[in-house]
Amino acid sequence: MIASPITAATVAEALEAVRAAAPRVHCITNDVAQAYTANTLLALGAVPSMTIAPDEVGGFAEKADCLLVNLGTFDATRRDAVDTALPIIENRGRRWALDPAHAESSNNRATLARTLIGRRPAAMRCNPAEFATLTDCPTSPQEVRGAAKAHDIVIAVTAAADIAADPRRTVKITNGHPLQARVTAAGCAATAVVAAFLAAVDDPLAATVSALAVVGIAAEIAAETAAGPGSLQIGCLDELYRLTPDAVVKRVRLG
Amino acid sequence: MIASPITAATVAEALEAVRAAAPRVHCITNDVAQAYTANTLLALGAVPSMTIAPDEVGGFAEKADCLLVNLGTFDATRRDAVDTALPIIENRGRRWALDPAHAESSNNRATLARTLIGRRPAAMRCNPAEFATLTDCPTSPQEVRGAAKAHDIVIAVTAAADIAADPRRTVKITNGHPLQARVTAAGCAATAVVAAFLAAVDDPLAATVSALAVVGIAAEIAAETAAGPGSLQIGCLDELYRLTPDAVVKRVRLG
Amino acid sequence: MIASPITAATVAEALEAVRAAAPRVHCITNDVAQAYTANTLLALGAVPSMTIAPDEVGGFAEKADCLLVNLGTFDATRRDAVDTALPIIENRGRRWALDPAHAESSNNRATLARTLIGRRPAAMRCNPAEFATLTDCPTSPQEVRGAAKAHDIVIAVTAAADIAADPRRTVKITNGHPLQARVTAAGCAATAVVAAFLAAVDDPLAATVSALAVVGIAAEIAAETAAGPGSLQIGCLDELYRLTPDAVVKRVRLG
Repeated sequence: MIASPITAATVAEALEAVRAAAPRVHCITNDVAQAYTANTLLALGAVPSMTIAPDEVGGFAEKADCLLVNLGTFDATRRDAVDTALPIIENRGRRWALDPAHAESSNNRATLARTLIGRRPAAMRCNPAEFATLTDCPTSPQEVRGAAKAHDIVIAVTAAADIAADPRRTVKITNGHPLQARVTAAGCAATAVVAAFLAAVDDPLAATVSALAVVGIAAEIAAETAAGPGSLQIGCLDELYRLTPDAVVKRVRLG
Repeated sequence: MIASPITAATVAEALEAVRAAAPRVHCITNDVAQAYTANTLLALGAVPSMTIAPDEVGGFAEKADCLLVNLGTFDATRRDAVDTALPIIENRGRRWALDPAHAESSNNRATLARTLIGRRPAAMRCNPAEFATLTDCPTSPQEVRGAAKAHDIVIAVTAAADIAADPRRTVKITNGHPLQARVTAAGCAATAVVAAFLAAVDDPLAATVSALAVVGIAAEIAAETAAGPGSLQIGCLDELYRLTPDAVVKRVRLG
Repeated sequence: MIASPITAATVAEALEAVRAAAPRVHCITNDVAQAYTANTLLALGAVPSMTIAPDEVGGFAEKADCLLVNLGTFDATRRDAVDTALPIIENRGRRWALDPAHAESSNNRATLARTLIGRRPAAMRCNPAEFATLTDCPTSPQEVRGAAKAHDIVIAVTAAADIAADPRRTVKITNGHPLQARVTAAGCAATAVVAAFLAAVDDPLAATVSALAVVGIAAEIAAETAAGPGSLQIGCLDELYRLTPDAVVKRVRLG
């Protein structure tokens, strides 16, 4: 793995930057994830908006600092919302993040995800099953960086260890807790956090790594007292709100 | 500010009245708010229903004791649901509450909100940005009462201090906690509580003030032990359920 | 009531079976229930999917181990999703569970529920109001078994005491806690748990009884420390995750 200039201090500074910027994050995301995603962004200090209505999404995209496109429970309305919002975000020079949720479960989603990757999100966050569907590759630092290079975007694949890469650098993040897998939309909300960091941090890889580290650290702290996935979900919101730069520096594990 | 006959005892009695009535509140509200709004009404002791399906909303409106119309994530289905449900509620002599959520973010919503205000909800609850969009006025006791007079409805603008007015009276409520702003749909759920009180309390201003005071007091109590916005959200439901008339009298702050 | 071979050990074994199988449960359910249902299934150890998009639901049904059909907030999209998914589930020899949510509130829903009962779900879970609408009968062990016999399915009616029957046997389950009624979608999530158990346990009545007992026991344990409906909801997820076969045997109350 190439030595990375992204350090614990980078992550702590990125957290402070996103809180100071309080970016407006417009989210085109799935029904199941909407409320938890909005609460996650609010806990972080960002300003979420969630509408997918055709005659409104353009107005929200005009004011957003970044856009999240998540393909879970994807339908015609969401497809239209992306068609409306994405050109606005691109023309305004704002960044967007892609979550190809469950791309492995539907050929339509996989095809759409590939098309959207071609429109160059600043970052894509996915899991190993989605990565395998979209690249025909297993998840490894080499394969993730290869895919990032092929598409000239940041790609992050999250699992027990997260791997994030841009065309030149690869970073491994080992924060997080296995119980997160028992909370619906935990991954979707993480991609929304990536979008928020992309709006406040210049280097897209630093933004992506910082977002995933912050989400993972909040989950780790929450898991120390959680009795199960219900209290973990609530604790993640609390800890994301309370997280200090000092705690970030102390806990972050980058490789 | 005109002296108001709405006292701490009014609020405590209103809470008992709404629990005794257990009103059916039909909610046409946004995707993000649906579950938290339903849980808030259940915690209070009201009976929520949430469908917006065109062939069903009429049947629910026929049985409802009051209606909530919230413009967040507004789309064609919700617009049709309002067109179906509102005349039924009006013909049955039932009250409804309007939440012009994010009217400042979309001209379509602002136009729709103005049209709906013209149909005279018993009460509208909004925030200062929405109030400014709809009235071209800043939030002040005088301006809120002026708008209430112009439209002959109750208007409540909620912020650090809430201001509620009917054409003759103005009441300030200073319960609540800043962390509520980090919980998605907290305002939307508050308007649903206003709708529930409107079904059980004769004086629409007393109903509105009582609803906002009760929601604010529950949040204050929850905030005393909450670790962040996650546990605050859960605590608001718990405290709304547990709130006693004595605690209301002790904590309510009206001006 | 006929002596039943379904014992405490049956329930404990069923819980272990469903955790070992980790069944994929595809849920066609209402907007309000989606997130809580997904979190409930994840806490149990099942794998939820929730899409209702017309061009995707078939692909998910092809991979699902069982299907949930819930009629809350039913609309044209959900109707089409059922038309697509149900034949796939039937052709693949998989089971499905029906929740005729709020059938008493809309003639359309009641008619649809009756049509779906005719397509023979492995089990239907409903409440007494829904049972009365669909059968013109009050809830009693005799009437529930009569309805189960008439339709040759398992029927469970949940209230303070749950009654579950197949054409030959009737079982009463008295686990649970009254505060569950203050949590939106608690019943909807319980039917999703029934679907998960149907995928992992041969005897459909044993599956249904076990699912309802497990949900009720988790709620009882959660209620011991819950401050109200907010913390109960979170506690139910935690306890469903933590529940041991020993605790099941110690707490289950079948009659």
